[in-house]
Amino acid sequence: MSGQRVCVEDFEKEAKKVLPKAVYDYYRSGADEQNTLADNVAAFKRYRLLPQTLYIISCIHLIISFLTSPLILPLYCVGSTGIDFMRYPDGGQATGRSCRAVGTGMMLSSWATSTIEEVMSAMTASPGGVLWLQLYIYKDRELTLSLVHRAEEAGYKAIFVTVDTPYLGRRWDDMRNRFKLPSHLSMSNFSSASLAFSEGNYGNDSGLAVYVAKAIDPTLCWDDITWLKKHTHLPVIVKGVLNGEDAVQAVNYGVDGILVSNHGARQLDGVPATLDVLEEVVKAVQGRCDVYLDGGVRRGTDVLKALALGAKAVFIGRPVLWGLACQGQQGVTEVLELIKEELRLAMALSGCRSVSEVSRSLVRRLEFTSRM
Amino acid sequence: MSGQRVCVEDFEKEAKKVLPKAVYDYYRSGADEQNTLADNVAAFKRYRLLPQTLYIISCIHLIISFLTSPLILPLYCVGSTGIDFMRYPDGGQATGRSCRAVGTGMMLSSWATSTIEEVMSAMTASPGGVLWLQLYIYKDRELTLSLVHRAEEAGYKAIFVTVDTPYLGRRWDDMRNRFKLPSHLSMSNFSSASLAFSEGNYGNDSGLAVYVAKAIDPTLCWDDITWLKKHTHLPVIVKGVLNGEDAVQAVNYGVDGILVSNHGARQLDGVPATLDVLEEVVKAVQGRCDVYLDGGVRRGTDVLKALALGAKAVFIGRPVLWGLACQGQQGVTEVLELIKEELRLAMALSGCRSVSEVSRSLVRRLEFTSRM
Amino acid sequence: MSGQRVCVEDFEKEAKKVLPKAVYDYYRSGADEQNTLADNVAAFKRYRLLPQTLYIISCIHLIISFLTSPLILPLYCVGSTGIDFMRYPDGGQATGRSCRAVGTGMMLSSWATSTIEEVMSAMTASPGGVLWLQLYIYKDRELTLSLVHRAEEAGYKAIFVTVDTPYLGRRWDDMRNRFKLPSHLSMSNFSSASLAFSEGNYGNDSGLAVYVAKAIDPTLCWDDITWLKKHTHLPVIVKGVLNGEDAVQAVNYGVDGILVSNHGARQLDGVPATLDVLEEVVKAVQGRCDVYLDGGVRRGTDVLKALALGAKAVFIGRPVLWGLACQGQQGVTEVLELIKEELRLAMALSGCRSVSEVSRSLVRRLEFTSRM
Amino acid sequence: MSGQRVCVEDFEKEAKKVLPKAVYDYYRSGADEQNTLADNVAAFKRYRLLPQTLYIISCIHLIISFLTSPLILPLYCVGSTGIDFMRYPDGGQATGRSCRAVGTGMMLSSWATSTIEEVMSAMTASPGGVLWLQLYIYKDRELTLSLVHRAEEAGYKAIFVTVDTPYLGRRWDDMRNRFKLPSHLSMSNFSSASLAFSEGNYGNDSGLAVYVAKAIDPTLCWDDITWLKKHTHLPVIVKGVLNGEDAVQAVNYGVDGILVSNHGARQLDGVPATLDVLEEVVKAVQGRCDVYLDGGVRRGTDVLKALALGAKAVFIGRPVLWGLACQGQQGVTEVLELIKEELRLAMALSGCRSVSEVSRSLVRRLEFTSRM
Repeated sequence: MSGQRVCVEDFEKEAKKVLPKAVYDYYRSGADEQNTLADNVAAFKRYRLLPQTLYIISCIHLIISFLTSPLILPLYCVGSTGIDFMRYPDGGQATGRSCRAVGTGMMLSSWATSTIEEVMSAMTASPGGVLWLQLYIYKDRELTLSLVHRAEEAGYKAIFVTVDTPYLGRRWDDMRNRFKLPSHLSMSNFSSASLAFSEGNYGNDSGLAVYVAKAIDPTLCWDDITWLKKHTHLPVIVKGVLNGEDAVQAVNYGVDGILVSNHGARQLDGVPATLDVLEEVVKAVQGRCDVYLDGGVRRGTDVLKALALGAKAVFIGRPVLWGLACQGQQGVTEVLELIKEELRLAMALSGCRSVSEVSRSLVRRLEFTSRM
Repeated sequence: MSGQRVCVEDFEKEAKKVLPKAVYDYYRSGADEQNTLADNVAAFKRYRLLPQTLYIISCIHLIISFLTSPLILPLYCVGSTGIDFMRYPDGGQATGRSCRAVGTGMMLSSWATSTIEEVMSAMTASPGGVLWLQLYIYKDRELTLSLVHRAEEAGYKAIFVTVDTPYLGRRWDDMRNRFKLPSHLSMSNFSSASLAFSEGNYGNDSGLAVYVAKAIDPTLCWDDITWLKKHTHLPVIVKGVLNGEDAVQAVNYGVDGILVSNHGARQLDGVPATLDVLEEVVKAVQGRCDVYLDGGVRRGTDVLKALALGAKAVFIGRPVLWGLACQGQQGVTEVLELIKEELRLAMALSGCRSVSEVSRSLVRRLEFTSRM
Repeated sequence: MSGQRVCVEDFEKEAKKVLPKAVYDYYRSGADEQNTLADNVAAFKRYRLLPQTLYIISCIHLIISFLTSPLILPLYCVGSTGIDFMRYPDGGQATGRSCRAVGTGMMLSSWATSTIEEVMSAMTASPGGVLWLQLYIYKDRELTLSLVHRAEEAGYKAIFVTVDTPYLGRRWDDMRNRFKLPSHLSMSNFSSASLAFSEGNYGNDSGLAVYVAKAIDPTLCWDDITWLKKHTHLPVIVKGVLNGEDAVQAVNYGVDGILVSNHGARQLDGVPATLDVLEEVVKAVQGRCDVYLDGGVRRGTDVLKALALGAKAVFIGRPVLWGLACQGQQGVTEVLELIKEELRLAMALSGCRSVSEVSRSLVRRLEFTSRM
Repeated sequence: MSGQRVCVEDFEKEAKKVLPKAVYDYYRSGADEQNTLADNVAAFKRYRLLPQTLYIISCIHLIISFLTSPLILPLYCVGSTGIDFMRYPDGGQATGRSCRAVGTGMMLSSWATSTIEEVMSAMTASPGGVLWLQLYIYKDRELTLSLVHRAEEAGYKAIFVTVDTPYLGRRWDDMRNRFKLPSHLSMSNFSSASLAFSEGNYGNDSGLAVYVAKAIDPTLCWDDITWLKKHTHLPVIVKGVLNGEDAVQAVNYGVDGILVSNHGARQLDGVPATLDVLEEVVKAVQGRCDVYLDGGVRRGTDVLKALALGAKAVFIGRPVLWGLACQGQQGVTEVLELIKEELRLAMALSGCRSVSEVSRSLVRRLEFTSRM
């Protein structure tokens, strides 16, 4: 790793310099005042690590199993940040190759600018890649199922269905920038300009908000989970749960996993930081399915805290994009290796030899924040 | 809506540029150190939204009934910020027309620079307008009743009687600016220069403080509510209650509603944020009358939080003034449409299809504030 | 009052401009990091006022009795800030005359640059002045008693004995400034240069710290209260109590009052704000003597909060000095009238017609501080 | 003491000016985001002192016994900050001489740039010096024992074995600076360039991190404490315990003392401030061995708070380095005298005549932090 980049923020600073403003803004922004955006990150600082000393730390095992896939790292990439790859048009493939190299998995967004098949083909050039599809449910249900079936055929291992986006959140920067894709890019999985988000004009608003209002189904309900499960043999994970009650519903509807997520704080400002509700979800689920988390993960100690609070693994979105913007596939690999190394060290310094040794007693929530 | 104005603060920034300093100061200021002024806004950030997912959100109903008037939006304008309309002399009428266009109501201040009749006449140019009168009780009780009776005759639907202003709060900017009305304006509802706040000289103090000390009755007590109710057939709502004990008193004295208000933090600095005492008032009232709130509402999620804590509806003051300053009637309409759209979206993202589905469980008070 | 000065801080800003740096520093500074200095002021913001509305507020009574003296205002001047009067050499007299004019009392410091007799003579030029003596207990007990007896003869009404200064606190600014009195001033109550703090050289340290180490008795103990009471017929109040246990001791040793004080945060940094311990002291005392408070009082609402928490009255130190620096006697009078007016208004807006109506239920401590 | 340096921070500011950036960074830095670094200091501000008044404070006794050595001050130097002495090559000796002069002890780091024997010889030039050895356990156990035996022979009085460094923490500045020793320095206790940290090239990383990964044993466990005790007659203190469970383990394994430490916040960011866990450790140990603390101590009141929470004594690291950088031995002496004087004054102002009178009731943890 370059001597200059010692933390994820170093990648972000560099990315900010090389990305067009509207693209950087799109990646970085949260909804409204961005209180939840800040809180997602701040929440990790509200938990202290309570390491134990004098355990034999000869080697650290980071391997976990994701449903049936064994993976080297409890940290996955989210290409679910959508239109991720504006600087590197083959960003989807690059990220996939990085994940395979590091030994972990990737969730590809429905809205990626690389197709489902292109990314899988990049990953399977050598064995070991694990891919999952993030799915928006479109008003056009046939179209929706066609995405699922293409993922099945291409060898994707699970479907993450987004349940927090009946409409797009208000992201002020995107509204001010009248955000749309540059003309040489489109959401590659779709053929019509309308569905591929490549129409020329979306008015004065965020183009993506207009797109969502037109295409995405706002009437999603729990029965749609049943419908989805009936049409695919792949495991279904719901993405966007923030409380125990919904988690219990999800389990009752037979989901295979729950991703605690507030959509990177991009939907409803004022919702809790994901870390702050993780434990409630874990307790509600009572082990009946795996629980994952995304939102605010920037460091190895963040991963460790989420694991201690009951997450099976965590996802990162923006850090991957900063890596990609800095240096393409190499940049993503550096980001993943950085957090992996931080996690390994944090475990060693906490007396955890493997992920299974990370227990609830490792973290303690602060009673109040100090003036740091 | 203009691409440049994506939130209420955008209107304020623009208004600050176009308004004379003393006018902007008058609108913006709170009493003393302005701790409560800041707290009114900050309080909304102390409550997190806990949305539920996967509810069928096909369309959002914002309609509520205000006493007997059905209104499209649980958000009303307060022309009760008094001398509101310094940039647009017909600001009272403009605001009224905006409210009617958006489908909501307006509370006109006793101190408006448009008369009771002028504003009503602007609203009833087409049907649908709902107007209420904010009332100060003057030492001269005949004068006071004449305002009430003019409102009755003009078709106003309720009287909001202010109970927190026996004297005017110390607003440092107004004291420094020796605040008074520009010579071409007056409190139009009154004929004498003395009562219309259009005397030439109010000394070194805030002119309005001098006016209040001279004209307003500081000996107001609960029996005056009885007196007022005896002299009007209109519903009477007390404006300025901040605790459960007073709320119970109000109900016992037969009021038709309670407006939880600290006068926009302009009276006694150090009182709680209105949102922080709302629930205490709601619980004390036990449904025996409606409870409303003003103070610090800037966003759709703020409205939603107040509804969840038991408010029947909320009032906004300063945002209306910023809209008016920016662009007259069109500016007010934009502000109302902005918050309406924010509220609609917040409800959709929270799984609430109508105002009646907004329940207490939607919000949770933070144990402590994070360093955001 | 000048239109420019609307709060105590306005006086401080102006005073800072006209005072020599070392003098301003001496007045303003607290000990060490000055955490307690800031906390004394911040504590008042941790208590919210919960006003009641619709009480008949026709006129506000501020009169209380101090031991046997009836006084118009529950707010007294502390000339106990010691070497107070560097800009106005007759500052002691000026402050005394102000207090008499406003109708309140003054505690004169042992270390004042005006004598016990001079200040009394200025006050008794017309009737109504009440003076108390602040007393340091010197190693030389005869000297100490001579101060007491001079106060008795001059007509002082009580002795406030300081119990928190066995050594002087570390005030960094004074250490850096090598603080000493300008050559034309001295502690007038003493005749020798050594005791009058007018030796030429105090080395590299704060001169006053050297003075205290040399002259003041660090072995003070409760029996010295007994000793003092035996030698004077005046009421004895202990100044510098910060917890309930000491308060009970004080009562058992027969004191006539307790002044909750941390010496303006000038002695031991890290002690609580006085407001935060006031209630503990009040509860411990159980009405067996009066309890007063100083520290951080800057505004009428501060006085009101202290009264609500059980103080019989409060003392102000620095605000008096800022007034004196700005405009001599007239400045002090303005400061006193300002806070008096703020208090009167705060009581009116809280529904309190007299000091005796200020009850504990008027204030509520915040659970946490907001980000204001 | 110079009039210019009135607190430890004054020494740091001056040190920052005279030290090469990479050296200053190395001394100052904590791991990762440095949250714990800030928290170590902030924690002391979360505890208020509750002094008692009117105790006879004629003289203050600071003497305690450290195991069998009587020492004048409950405050020791940590030369365990390792490569401490970059500006003054004989810094180890200078610090030792200062400690002896002031009457306290010093813990010498295994990694010092002066040898075990050199420092002892400097101290024993006159009687009274107490030295302890900080010990890293190397993969090479013979080497490790040779350090212990050299310490025994030289007359060291105890071994502090570090248990929190199986790997070195990520210190961003050191990574960016590619930290290594200047060519004229080495870890003097070792003969080979590899062990003495004087190889020319450590790649792009922090050189010290590379050194630790290569030389230090990451498989340390409780049985190694048994092993160490078997090979030395000196008392063994474990350095780096942060919770009660580990403390009980330590006692069960027969340690003679526990040093509550997070390695100056240089290992795992996110662990608690040492002061915040001190009491838990003290309670767990139940008096079966002494408990010490380091981390964030900057002032006499800090020492007093740690004593009140149950520490037998505290250690300071960075302040000693700032003193050394400013003015060599004289600088260290000044720092020690400064904190000693602060402690003495804090005890006097708190009513404590000796260390044994410092009780738990002297401190109270804040419920929340104020906005100071």
